[in-house]
Amino acid sequence: MYRTHTCGELRAAHIGKEVTLSGWVQRSRDLGGMTFVDLRDRYGITQLAFNMETHEALCSEARKWGREFVIQATGKVIERHSKNHQIPTGEIEILVENCAVLNPSKTPPFTIEEESDGGDDLRMQWRFLDLRRNPLKNNLMLRHRMGIVARNFLDQQGFLEIETPYLIKSTPEGARDFVVPSRMNPGQFYALPQSPQTFKQLLMVSGYDRYYQIVRCFRDEDLRADRQPEFTQIDCEMAFVEQEDILNTFESMVRTLFKEVKGIDLAAVPRMTYADAMRYYGSDKPDIRFDMKFQDFSDKMKNKGFVIFDNAEVVLGIVAKGAGNYTRKQLDELTEWVKRPQIGAKGLVYCLCQEGGTFKSSVDKFYSQEQWKEIAAQGDAQQGDLILILSGELHATRKQLGELRLHLGNQLGLRNPEEFKSLWVMDFPLVEWNEEAQRWFAMHHPFTSPKPEHIALLDTEPGAVNANAYDFVINGVEVGGGSIRIHDRQVQSRMFELLGFTPEEAQEQFGFLLNAFEYGAPPHGGIAFGFDRLCSLFGGADNIRDFIAFPKNNSGRDVMIDAPSVIEKKQLDELFIDVKTVD
Amino acid sequence: MYRTHTCGELRAAHIGKEVTLSGWVQRSRDLGGMTFVDLRDRYGITQLAFNMETHEALCSEARKWGREFVIQATGKVIERHSKNHQIPTGEIEILVENCAVLNPSKTPPFTIEEESDGGDDLRMQWRFLDLRRNPLKNNLMLRHRMGIVARNFLDQQGFLEIETPYLIKSTPEGARDFVVPSRMNPGQFYALPQSPQTFKQLLMVSGYDRYYQIVRCFRDEDLRADRQPEFTQIDCEMAFVEQEDILNTFESMVRTLFKEVKGIDLAAVPRMTYADAMRYYGSDKPDIRFDMKFQDFSDKMKNKGFVIFDNAEVVLGIVAKGAGNYTRKQLDELTEWVKRPQIGAKGLVYCLCQEGGTFKSSVDKFYSQEQWKEIAAQGDAQQGDLILILSGELHATRKQLGELRLHLGNQLGLRNPEEFKSLWVMDFPLVEWNEEAQRWFAMHHPFTSPKPEHIALLDTEPGAVNANAYDFVINGVEVGGGSIRIHDRQVQSRMFELLGFTPEEAQEQFGFLLNAFEYGAPPHGGIAFGFDRLCSLFGGADNIRDFIAFPKNNSGRDVMIDAPSVIEKKQLDELFIDVKTVD
Repeated sequence: MYRTHTCGELRAAHIGKEVTLSGWVQRSRDLGGMTFVDLRDRYGITQLAFNMETHEALCSEARKWGREFVIQATGKVIERHSKNHQIPTGEIEILVENCAVLNPSKTPPFTIEEESDGGDDLRMQWRFLDLRRNPLKNNLMLRHRMGIVARNFLDQQGFLEIETPYLIKSTPEGARDFVVPSRMNPGQFYALPQSPQTFKQLLMVSGYDRYYQIVRCFRDEDLRADRQPEFTQIDCEMAFVEQEDILNTFESMVRTLFKEVKGIDLAAVPRMTYADAMRYYGSDKPDIRFDMKFQDFSDKMKNKGFVIFDNAEVVLGIVAKGAGNYTRKQLDELTEWVKRPQIGAKGLVYCLCQEGGTFKSSVDKFYSQEQWKEIAAQGDAQQGDLILILSGELHATRKQLGELRLHLGNQLGLRNPEEFKSLWVMDFPLVEWNEEAQRWFAMHHPFTSPKPEHIALLDTEPGAVNANAYDFVINGVEVGGGSIRIHDRQVQSRMFELLGFTPEEAQEQFGFLLNAFEYGAPPHGGIAFGFDRLCSLFGGADNIRDFIAFPKNNSGRDVMIDAPSVIEKKQLDELFIDVKTVD
Repeated sequence: MYRTHTCGELRAAHIGKEVTLSGWVQRSRDLGGMTFVDLRDRYGITQLAFNMETHEALCSEARKWGREFVIQATGKVIERHSKNHQIPTGEIEILVENCAVLNPSKTPPFTIEEESDGGDDLRMQWRFLDLRRNPLKNNLMLRHRMGIVARNFLDQQGFLEIETPYLIKSTPEGARDFVVPSRMNPGQFYALPQSPQTFKQLLMVSGYDRYYQIVRCFRDEDLRADRQPEFTQIDCEMAFVEQEDILNTFESMVRTLFKEVKGIDLAAVPRMTYADAMRYYGSDKPDIRFDMKFQDFSDKMKNKGFVIFDNAEVVLGIVAKGAGNYTRKQLDELTEWVKRPQIGAKGLVYCLCQEGGTFKSSVDKFYSQEQWKEIAAQGDAQQGDLILILSGELHATRKQLGELRLHLGNQLGLRNPEEFKSLWVMDFPLVEWNEEAQRWFAMHHPFTSPKPEHIALLDTEPGAVNANAYDFVINGVEVGGGSIRIHDRQVQSRMFELLGFTPEEAQEQFGFLLNAFEYGAPPHGGIAFGFDRLCSLFGGADNIRDFIAFPKNNSGRDVMIDAPSVIEKKQLDELFIDVKTVD
């Protein structure tokens, strides 16, 4: 037996017991007469004590061990002279009577501590060592717990986990597919699923009225910091439900996760239309941990002689509470910040609401103190507050001001990662116009149902059609999204037509679903949660990579195993494919 | 709200209640004054009653509904005149006051009943309709339950579910990989994992001493009846354990599954060496629901003048209890059966142990009654039993006799699918010689550890080296297999060398693992269970396909969605690949 206890288990109550532990050398201290070794495993750290006087050979041996050696040690649990109250095992130590090196270790390329001295690239390359560090270990344990809690919640609600295939059919709509050449069907390819969307809808047609799956999904997109080519969803679907049923069920799931995983009672989840989210926060996933709503100052600020505002479609502002003491330097920095290409504003107008009720703005020559007073009143800006204003085309200005709002939220400490504010954003447009492609694209996906009262608009004004679609947002992060689906063949065909599919293309790609709708498809809808993101949010982090055991880098590479890689010509031949020469 | 209750929920206690149900029309009967419609959902069937006298319009409407129409009906729960004691809702019916067709249905291409009238191909093509049938629904519900029970068991044992990547690196050892061209890394390919083997070993090196994952795996092999290109494993690994710890843990998991899913108390699981399994059953996965052990009759039957036996390496027999009354026709059929190419025996010797203690065999001229008496005594054959004997080369004869044993087990009704007999098969050889490739192949995989006391034999007699490897067998089906792994770089390198890898190839393909073994790899081992097969076994079936929602056919095709399929030239171009013309 390699161990009688783990390294996180022994307490004062065990004093006098003979135990065997196995683990890794975290650090060792040689104090002449005694040598102390901190032995670490997944469960904690226990101090091993070696006595040079009574066990000279043993102690000399232990002094040769380097960091990360794998050690097995047997001895008696004794009371520690200088107790360590930082760790649960800090009252005891093991007076070692016998030990063995189970495996030595070279010196790791970086320190295995809470904070490592290794850079990102090095730690990715040696991911198996980085995973020994507590922060990553805690993340993966959190992720495991969330999976268990989510599954048991859904099980108790009568949902069945049903596995859908990973080798499916490529469809050009949506993001780019990863494809898999078929050896048995020369010249043909499978695709890896971007989501199990059509399969879960078929399961509804099959009568499995409550489905879920914690499932890997794949998208071959250029990667941004927070994107991975493979990611995990909690994917759910229900039949014979209305939108309200789905919202209630999954609000309850998130509430259960918060309660059981973090001990937090989630407040009631407010609901906001997409239109309001855009109007007040310039974002379809507003962070409502802080208010700072948009104000439309167009009426008060246009046609007052300031030509930039006069020519703008809208003049929008926010009030940063307590930022009225910002220095000229801070204000210049904000201006530079919004002018960066990532934000793209042309400039920033500010107004400090000063002590004594006066205003100091960057456009004082165009607006009187009286006018500022009215503007301030509209935004409920008090003395000591800062008004920040952007102008331009409606959509772009909202987006820019939304970014500025979040930036200020960070600067002013309004975005506490330990505080959680959830939100349903509802009533999304069904489609949006794409200028480049000169056609309509589905805002969620082609299976999302238009609101019944808007169906007639599909022919006349598609952009005005709203969908029974909803996103679950926590702290400004979209963690889930879904919709009531189309279950009527005619409506689905009309939708494909609107998205530019010929009837033949629609039949070729989605014939199985269109057929299914003719054989008793029930009303249904669902939602999918981004599990990586949900975990990172629960972990108080904004990087999903640290919540995935073996992530890819931004080039889609696993630098630890060195994948992807070239394959043998024999493999290519069997698959009937050639690699083209790249210049 | 689409429903107040499900179609499986209402009982006599609900009589008088106003309810709304939604579901599918299973069948309808028109009795003149009344029309009855059986409404079905996942939970059961409830009878709807329409009264022609009081609700003529409603009743006429209902008479138009076809099978599989999706209906919503509201009415009062009333007591049924002629109760149906076959179904839980059989005491009541709904006197319908209001109803709506939620979606009509064309007539399905086959009947949606316990036994369908549709052929295999048709039902695969219309899988979403076949999935409505009770047998398939029960299979998927069983599968869901098994997943929940397995996960909760492992969670309670301190195992963490950790997701490993699906886009990994192709390695030529083992079965053929499915590969995925990388757009961002031109000319390079990911592989889909055949198992998360190396990743779970890395997790052990990372200190996650109890890992599991219910995970999809992929093998691009020519498909047999019971194989799928994608399949699911319960994949597990533990560190700081010996073989005994793993056997106990997973015996306990299977015991929990039997208890919680089927209410069965699994008997203690016996253990058998691979050598004994081959010696007594001619199989490394013997079905021990019945005995019928092999007898080696070589000593008693060779060199008695029967040239076929004289020239054979071995003469092996089995005793079929109670089959001494087999007719000549039955015996001829058995002979034909073993001579089929799938079995490949040259012939079959039989001996009927008759009433009165005489023997009647197919080789009477070579063996006396006295000799038969001794042979019968060795095999404990009594009056009324049948002795069946094969001869030839050891390995082939064992295999043939093993097949014959199972065939007789079926004929004699000794293989009851409701009875479960488990078995550990242990001490597998580490490697086996492949004549065609003229090299050693790993019997489990290249990471399996030789028994420490056999390591010296690696250089002199690799075929004699046994491994700490074990299979879990239920009713003659291998449902799980695993081993203690190598955790020493030198041993792993030696193993790769034995398997014909050059040091460069080993480093190129498994460098990350060899490296990991130099940075504190703990002793570890694990097991993986074939989840599809485990589910089918629990479901009393021998076809895994009916326990997978959307399986592929034997050509690796999903005939419902018509995948794989050709993809657009634009996709190929982006991936830097060409499809070769197939002649």
